[in-house]
Amino acid sequence: MNRNDVTEKIIGTKVLKGLQWHDIASQVGQSKEWTTALCLGQMTASPEQARVLGRIFDLTDEEQKWLQVVPYKGSLPTPVPTDPLIYRWYEVVSVYGSTIKELIHEEFGDGIMSAIDFSMDIQREADPKGDRVNVVLSGKFLPYKAY
Amino acid sequence: MNRNDVTEKIIGTKVLKGLQWHDIASQVGQSKEWTTALCLGQMTASPEQARVLGRIFDLTDEEQKWLQVVPYKGSLPTPVPTDPLIYRWYEVVSVYGSTIKELIHEEFGDGIMSAIDFSMDIQREADPKGDRVNVVLSGKFLPYKAY
Amino acid sequence: MNRNDVTEKIIGTKVLKGLQWHDIASQVGQSKEWTTALCLGQMTASPEQARVLGRIFDLTDEEQKWLQVVPYKGSLPTPVPTDPLIYRWYEVVSVYGSTIKELIHEEFGDGIMSAIDFSMDIQREADPKGDRVNVVLSGKFLPYKAY
Amino acid sequence: MNRNDVTEKIIGTKVLKGLQWHDIASQVGQSKEWTTALCLGQMTASPEQARVLGRIFDLTDEEQKWLQVVPYKGSLPTPVPTDPLIYRWYEVVSVYGSTIKELIHEEFGDGIMSAIDFSMDIQREADPKGDRVNVVLSGKFLPYKAY
Amino acid sequence: MNRNDVTEKIIGTKVLKGLQWHDIASQVGQSKEWTTALCLGQMTASPEQARVLGRIFDLTDEEQKWLQVVPYKGSLPTPVPTDPLIYRWYEVVSVYGSTIKELIHEEFGDGIMSAIDFSMDIQREADPKGDRVNVVLSGKFLPYKAY
Amino acid sequence: MNRNDVTEKIIGTKVLKGLQWHDIASQVGQSKEWTTALCLGQMTASPEQARVLGRIFDLTDEEQKWLQVVPYKGSLPTPVPTDPLIYRWYEVVSVYGSTIKELIHEEFGDGIMSAIDFSMDIQREADPKGDRVNVVLSGKFLPYKAY
Amino acid sequence: MNRNDVTEKIIGTKVLKGLQWHDIASQVGQSKEWTTALCLGQMTASPEQARVLGRIFDLTDEEQKWLQVVPYKGSLPTPVPTDPLIYRWYEVVSVYGSTIKELIHEEFGDGIMSAIDFSMDIQREADPKGDRVNVVLSGKFLPYKAY
Amino acid sequence: MNRNDVTEKIIGTKVLKGLQWHDIASQVGQSKEWTTALCLGQMTASPEQARVLGRIFDLTDEEQKWLQVVPYKGSLPTPVPTDPLIYRWYEVVSVYGSTIKELIHEEFGDGIMSAIDFSMDIQREADPKGDRVNVVLSGKFLPYKAY
Amino acid sequence: MNRNDVTEKIIGTKVLKGLQWHDIASQVGQSKEWTTALCLGQMTASPEQARVLGRIFDLTDEEQKWLQVVPYKGSLPTPVPTDPLIYRWYEVVSVYGSTIKELIHEEFGDGIMSAIDFSMDIQREADPKGDRVNVVLSGKFLPYKAY
Amino acid sequence: MNRNDVTEKIIGTKVLKGLQWHDIASQVGQSKEWTTALCLGQMTASPEQARVLGRIFDLTDEEQKWLQVVPYKGSLPTPVPTDPLIYRWYEVVSVYGSTIKELIHEEFGDGIMSAIDFSMDIQREADPKGDRVNVVLSGKFLPYKAY
Repeated sequence: MNRNDVTEKIIGTKVLKGLQWHDIASQVGQSKEWTTALCLGQMTASPEQARVLGRIFDLTDEEQKWLQVVPYKGSLPTPVPTDPLIYRWYEVVSVYGSTIKELIHEEFGDGIMSAIDFSMDIQREADPKGDRVNVVLSGKFLPYKAY
Repeated sequence: MNRNDVTEKIIGTKVLKGLQWHDIASQVGQSKEWTTALCLGQMTASPEQARVLGRIFDLTDEEQKWLQVVPYKGSLPTPVPTDPLIYRWYEVVSVYGSTIKELIHEEFGDGIMSAIDFSMDIQREADPKGDRVNVVLSGKFLPYKAY
Repeated sequence: MNRNDVTEKIIGTKVLKGLQWHDIASQVGQSKEWTTALCLGQMTASPEQARVLGRIFDLTDEEQKWLQVVPYKGSLPTPVPTDPLIYRWYEVVSVYGSTIKELIHEEFGDGIMSAIDFSMDIQREADPKGDRVNVVLSGKFLPYKAY
Repeated sequence: MNRNDVTEKIIGTKVLKGLQWHDIASQVGQSKEWTTALCLGQMTASPEQARVLGRIFDLTDEEQKWLQVVPYKGSLPTPVPTDPLIYRWYEVVSVYGSTIKELIHEEFGDGIMSAIDFSMDIQREADPKGDRVNVVLSGKFLPYKAY
Repeated sequence: MNRNDVTEKIIGTKVLKGLQWHDIASQVGQSKEWTTALCLGQMTASPEQARVLGRIFDLTDEEQKWLQVVPYKGSLPTPVPTDPLIYRWYEVVSVYGSTIKELIHEEFGDGIMSAIDFSMDIQREADPKGDRVNVVLSGKFLPYKAY
Repeated sequence: MNRNDVTEKIIGTKVLKGLQWHDIASQVGQSKEWTTALCLGQMTASPEQARVLGRIFDLTDEEQKWLQVVPYKGSLPTPVPTDPLIYRWYEVVSVYGSTIKELIHEEFGDGIMSAIDFSMDIQREADPKGDRVNVVLSGKFLPYKAY
Repeated sequence: MNRNDVTEKIIGTKVLKGLQWHDIASQVGQSKEWTTALCLGQMTASPEQARVLGRIFDLTDEEQKWLQVVPYKGSLPTPVPTDPLIYRWYEVVSVYGSTIKELIHEEFGDGIMSAIDFSMDIQREADPKGDRVNVVLSGKFLPYKAY
Repeated sequence: MNRNDVTEKIIGTKVLKGLQWHDIASQVGQSKEWTTALCLGQMTASPEQARVLGRIFDLTDEEQKWLQVVPYKGSLPTPVPTDPLIYRWYEVVSVYGSTIKELIHEEFGDGIMSAIDFSMDIQREADPKGDRVNVVLSGKFLPYKAY
Repeated sequence: MNRNDVTEKIIGTKVLKGLQWHDIASQVGQSKEWTTALCLGQMTASPEQARVLGRIFDLTDEEQKWLQVVPYKGSLPTPVPTDPLIYRWYEVVSVYGSTIKELIHEEFGDGIMSAIDFSMDIQREADPKGDRVNVVLSGKFLPYKAY
Repeated sequence: MNRNDVTEKIIGTKVLKGLQWHDIASQVGQSKEWTTALCLGQMTASPEQARVLGRIFDLTDEEQKWLQVVPYKGSLPTPVPTDPLIYRWYEVVSVYGSTIKELIHEEFGDGIMSAIDFSMDIQREADPKGDRVNVVLSGKFLPYKAY
């Protein structure tokens, strides 16, 4: 057994029971973004969180233990994603990557926007011309320093 | 001459004159995000915008014309970016890609978040534990429909 | 179980029963193009469509539920396809890609032809020198706008 | 000198003189699709066509001769295109590739749709919800035969 | 079940029974080249041919049906083949590719040698310095035409 | 200066002077296939052959010396060729590769068909349904032996 | 002009003048590791540091300005390095990567060792069986947190 | 059975029993770094070490024998690792690779730092601004010599 | 069943029984190099050799037949090997490749060193500074000839 | 100027003057293998060796200094070489790689054959059936040790 087996069981059970990620998240007591990433094998659960997910998805003790092991991260099967929704995000990095780099460096100097001390919030924004997906990304700025 | 030559001249002139993207954007009259992408060869200028940039960067008539030609987009030299700042964005797509897909589909059904009818806003968020980069992405939801 | 399992069962059953895509499509009540893409794991079924396909392909309740989950799209095993029929389409993009880009931009300005708000129609065109495959692609033009 | 040099000169002159592909095509006396592909280094000119293009783009005798040499085809710099407009076409091949294969085989049996005995027609289709790009692809069906 | 399963069964049975491709081909009534390609999952059988192969390789009805489905072609596991015999052919394309292109264009003009309307014949040629493999490839020339 | 420079000069001069490979070959006194490969930088000239080519293409002494240096072979810019004519040959290796392997092994046992002790002959074959390209490949069989 | 040009000039001048990185570093007043990375185009100089390097390497004002621009980082030409010394480091990541991951997670929980808030110290360690290279890497631990 | 099966059993058992690498290492009597690499399928056990691990992880005689077979090394699934923790190490090689090369050559001349006669020590370093990961790498210098 | 299954059974049995390649080779009556390559799925056995290996490794009749089928060769899972021992050989080709090419051409003219009419002998060479691996490669020179 | 420029000058001069590697090596006083690798940009010269090569190839002082700088090694343009002579060596690693690994481990235990403490000797071996290339590789065995 490995983490992938647990992820597949979670996804399969979610389809069978017709569950929703935001409901699962509110039972876990964390944001829907972090909770979904946890269930998809990208984050690490506390024992209590594993117990809650165990109840929701009928996980055995061994499966709950796997949720508490730090996973090998990376959720996509190819370096350039083929799924259109995910590709659009890759395209944003491709088209706007140099722009993002310039503007963060202009404001903060040399360094990066952390992808670890990081959170994400995805919301629907009503719009008469067609609703929009609004995403807020927040990452700590980490400066390179001379030493 | 091609668009790359114009982009390189713009970047070189910016370094020489010590210009700032937000100043350039306010003269162009657009957001700093779009204006930077334009200057880095990813967007297409109107004749008036090309004239303003021509004045700022000492561009010839021919160079201004190139700014008005739709460019071949994609600003990164490799499929997996090597620059740490840009890589962190690629990592977000890699680690959170399946999460983003699940949550947008849960809210909107099958479809994508447009990378064309799209805008981006990058801001500094003061934080006593270290300032943060805050980014808002807004893209129209485009549904797949049966036909 | 995952969507791939359902796709393989559909394909296997189609071979065993000797079914035709255009018959399946007329029972589903959609075009043969969209219906085939649905059966091959690229589109998402409504509950009613899943029921119809369930009857045709002897799918269980769980399998019908999987048809209603948005799939991870991308139907080809390699970035450059090896199958000669599909490769010819890839070759069209390779040889005519820059031409398509120039002509759409000349007519519409900067933007893209949507692959989401999109439909396709494939027909036989009788021709004394050998019949032809006629394909009509229709995609909404989505403009890039300055912001 | 090689064909690429001629292509770059043609593109540069087009930008400088502000020419349009459909005008160029009507002077050449061929479709705008084929003529653009010729100018972008993918097709081979007759001596007369080379002369016409020579007049339009101020090409020397040597440059006109290069237009009559069969080029090494393939107009894209990477196997998976980075430009959003061209990527959408690649995505169509990726998402619908297996569908296209199934439907052509269902109608014609084993074989391919030729990319050589092939033509393409790109038109604007007015639509109150946003104009559409309409593309007609026509390729001769070539059957595999047992021997 | 899919075509690969049938291919593997055919190969396994051939080893077990000690069969020869040229014998199989003469029972099928086609060339040894086409028949081998069919058995290796690259061509499509007629119902009669499937029946003959079914008798030779003890194939079930379902397996015989799979032989009549157009396969996803491409028989090699990597873009650059690792097997020395097949690599030598890839090397011929690599070393002589530009030569072949030049000579066919010199004789026929712009176009291709078809790989669909195509046949192949492999023979032993006795030679006192060591026997040779003689291969005749015959493909229809398909011209690009202006439209 | 390197061999590539000589190859480019040869190609450019051939276009300018309107020469034909079969004429060049008959002056060199070798087949058109080998002579073209030599001119395209894949084979090594004798001093006499270099002199003949020097006269035809106005090559300096230094350039003639480079023709006598064994070149780094491989005439294609990408592992999977993008040019349609050359791709068709790659496709033959991809689709028929396992067939070729089986048939040569059936006839000769374990070993390869040499790509070094090798010759190629390309001819037009008149055909009322459209002329064909006929290619004869001849390579010595080299057996693997136990030691 | 771009940062690469400055890097190449620095390397060329260092060879010509026979300079040593540790001497350069002591003039810059930083560690030899950081200073070398700066000179090789991976770090960003302060105006004062640029001035010192300008004096050492005879850099113009424009070249000194480029040293103060945040560079596009990544100093290797291929994803898998070909140089034996650098490859050995890549091999350490390949062979010990999963070990490093396990041990850091065992000690710290889920998170990463920062490559930004990071320093490196390379020293010779005398050893009678052959001197050793001793490297100390120090990176802040950054925890993933639930949100 | 192969070494991978043993590695997976070890990892699974470790999760189930809640073991710690440093405890396992102290029973084996080697460093935690080497012992973890051994358990993850990168190193070779002595018969005695295999016996100790056999007791800890309930390994059969056959599984213990596999621990004593030299494994095919390389612990990562992709050339560029996707896991953020391991990627940071790859990034260090990418950003600092040329620096490391310069400084080792400056100190030692041409040669490499061995990845075989090599050891690694990973420690927590307490720091009021956030604890740090401290890693010491020690590799014998191996000079290239003229011969 | 396929050749891989036989290879895996041979390797597994060798570990279980604690056999040595040189013993196996002396029973087969061939060199240890060729015999090991045969057992690892790269060479083809005679019926007698298959019988001997069948007795050593408890192979069934069907498994012995598979040893007599010419295999699809290539024993490494990735184009650039990750195992340090095998990588060192790849590195020799990378670093010395152009040297080997120059020296063989200087001695023999244009052609190759055969990898088919080829043998290899691996021996320990005692050395007070540390024993060495001595390898003798012997390959027939095959000249390119004009035709 | 960089090392590549020096390498190209050396190769060009060698062609122009018609020099031989073994003559050059005897003037340098090292083996032809090491000397050729040095001239092709893979090894590092002593000041005296640089002076000798400077005299042979008319190198300036600056060019001689570059010969004394440790180069970025790796002499091939692609991970899988396209040149037939060099490819045969790559094929040996591909086909015999696992054999080499098994036999060295059987004789020496876990470790590698060094590619640094390494030498190579290439000789012609007369043979009535066609002369052979004989190559002796000698590399120190470096054991992995537990720590």
